Amino acid sequence: MTALWQRRPVGIVGLGLIGGSLGLDLLARGATVRALVHRQATADRALERGLASAVSTDPELLRDCGLVVLALPLDLLLDPPPQLLASLPPGAVITDVGSVKAPVLQAWTARLGPERASRFVASHPMAGTARAGVEAGLAGLFRGRPWVATPIEATDPSALAAVSALAEAVGARWLTCGAADHDRAVALISHLPVLVSAALLQAADRGGAVVSATGRPAAGSAGAVAAGERADAALDPGVSTLSALVRGLASSGFADTTRVGGGNPELGTLMARGNRQPLLAALAQYRQALAELEQLVTSESWPDLQAALAEAQRLRPEFL
Amino acid sequence: MTALWQRRPVGIVGLGLIGGSLGLDLLARGATVRALVHRQATADRALERGLASAVSTDPELLRDCGLVVLALPLDLLLDPPPQLLASLPPGAVITDVGSVKAPVLQAWTARLGPERASRFVASHPMAGTARAGVEAGLAGLFRGRPWVATPIEATDPSALAAVSALAEAVGARWLTCGAADHDRAVALISHLPVLVSAALLQAADRGGAVVSATGRPAAGSAGAVAAGERADAALDPGVSTLSALVRGLASSGFADTTRVGGGNPELGTLMARGNRQPLLAALAQYRQALAELEQLVTSESWPDLQAALAEAQRLRPEFL
Repeated sequence: MTALWQRRPVGIVGLGLIGGSLGLDLLARGATVRALVHRQATADRALERGLASAVSTDPELLRDCGLVVLALPLDLLLDPPPQLLASLPPGAVITDVGSVKAPVLQAWTARLGPERASRFVASHPMAGTARAGVEAGLAGLFRGRPWVATPIEATDPSALAAVSALAEAVGARWLTCGAADHDRAVALISHLPVLVSAALLQAADRGGAVVSATGRPAAGSAGAVAAGERADAALDPGVSTLSALVRGLASSGFADTTRVGGGNPELGTLMARGNRQPLLAALAQYRQALAELEQLVTSESWPDLQAALAEAQRLRPEFL
Repeated sequence: MTALWQRRPVGIVGLGLIGGSLGLDLLARGATVRALVHRQATADRALERGLASAVSTDPELLRDCGLVVLALPLDLLLDPPPQLLASLPPGAVITDVGSVKAPVLQAWTARLGPERASRFVASHPMAGTARAGVEAGLAGLFRGRPWVATPIEATDPSALAAVSALAEAVGARWLTCGAADHDRAVALISHLPVLVSAALLQAADRGGAVVSATGRPAAGSAGAVAAGERADAALDPGVSTLSALVRGLASSGFADTTRVGGGNPELGTLMARGNRQPLLAALAQYRQALAELEQLVTSESWPDLQAALAEAQRLRPEFL
């Protein structure tokens, strides 16, 4: 049997990174894609880029769609505007792309009512780049990436199958699990790393601002430089302040460990806000793990520290 | 004036990643390189690889060297065997490559005595790969990388200049600073990230081992699976346990943030042991920074969290 996305037009609400990429991939596979956007300028540019068959700011466009993908930022998914709800075709299968699932399910189940809620499939295509907006969409974004759905008891199996077929059409790896488990998992592997990594940047910055321990100049140098006087340090490349040192000596390891912490602050905040309790639980796990490592350093328990680091080394490939 | 490494043979003690790479680069620039190694098999292989002009297990080899580089693991640098000390030519400039400087300086100044200690230049070429041993050395390793020296009041300026010329010959970026500042800086940007990153792997593992919140099966799935039953989850790709989820959903962000934490446990322990006090100070800075971020999540201070993440985003390019 042909899938719903092949038989009926697919609606996409929002043409940012996820919506635009989905439009490109579905068009390439022969689907009819109708996209609803907020601004006319976005509609014009999206048509230029070929992100959908038709793009409009008028919800009427979605009328014939059998499947609608809500490719909107998390804040809009958690508090959907009434006009968005009104624009969705009553019989359509609806799915979202939000990175947190329990609150999205709660918001939409309550607003759609039991009959329509059975055709709402909460889902999360886990693909991304650092880009956003109508220029961000790119072909092949979902290939090999997880697309997680979090169905509930009331979910219509045919609605779930329709979203699964959509995910498979764009090459994603389909998974289902409970919404709470999804949210715990992304707290641990996606939202916790943002804070862990941001704190490292702050610690390196603050640690480097401590007044230099070296009161006297290095042999052969022009003179002592005080911590924080980076301009002076720059004048004499042979002598560095602590602040300049931590910046100048940071290597690829530091760059890697801080990458996600240096990412989009709005996005990081939205994730923390939308997944607050699981994130706090993940932070508690993390604090405990770090405190144990610190205790091994404090007590000079070197064989135990080496065993703990060996355990981390053993664990990492399981996550890759 | 020609540099010391051009006028006299250069000795290298140890032909691992750093020693071997240095040998390759110096030979390519026309130096005579004499390498002392521990085992005959290493000597044979090093000659096959062309890491030095001559390689021996006999310290007599170093006799004519004007400059000797101690390219040894940190534990040997911190507690040098008497036969190593005895093998060093009395008039030579000596430098080391240890990743921690204050304890190395202390160990060598005490053992060499004031006259010879003036020609000991503690230094740290900050280049590396994940490889080790006689097969690890590669040409061009130091190009563009920092080579930090930590001279003291008593350091002979001509000895410092000899090591500086060596570093520049292999394309490194020469820097000098106080040993305490060096050790603080590497604690913040190199040793702290190892623990921060290892703790993240442990937290994700432990957090994922929590019993799944989902007692009932996902719609359309074969049945409920208990947390930890990864084999069962693998049988039905549509349903995942929390433990399998955290592993299956981890993306490039998690991979990057955990890279250094999944590295060599012996090396991580050696660094922590050799740089314990600065590392504990860095951990205290880090704990404070993370606690502040956590407090913002706990108190739902979203604008403040966004400001803190924006600060991290602003800081990161300063370290790259």
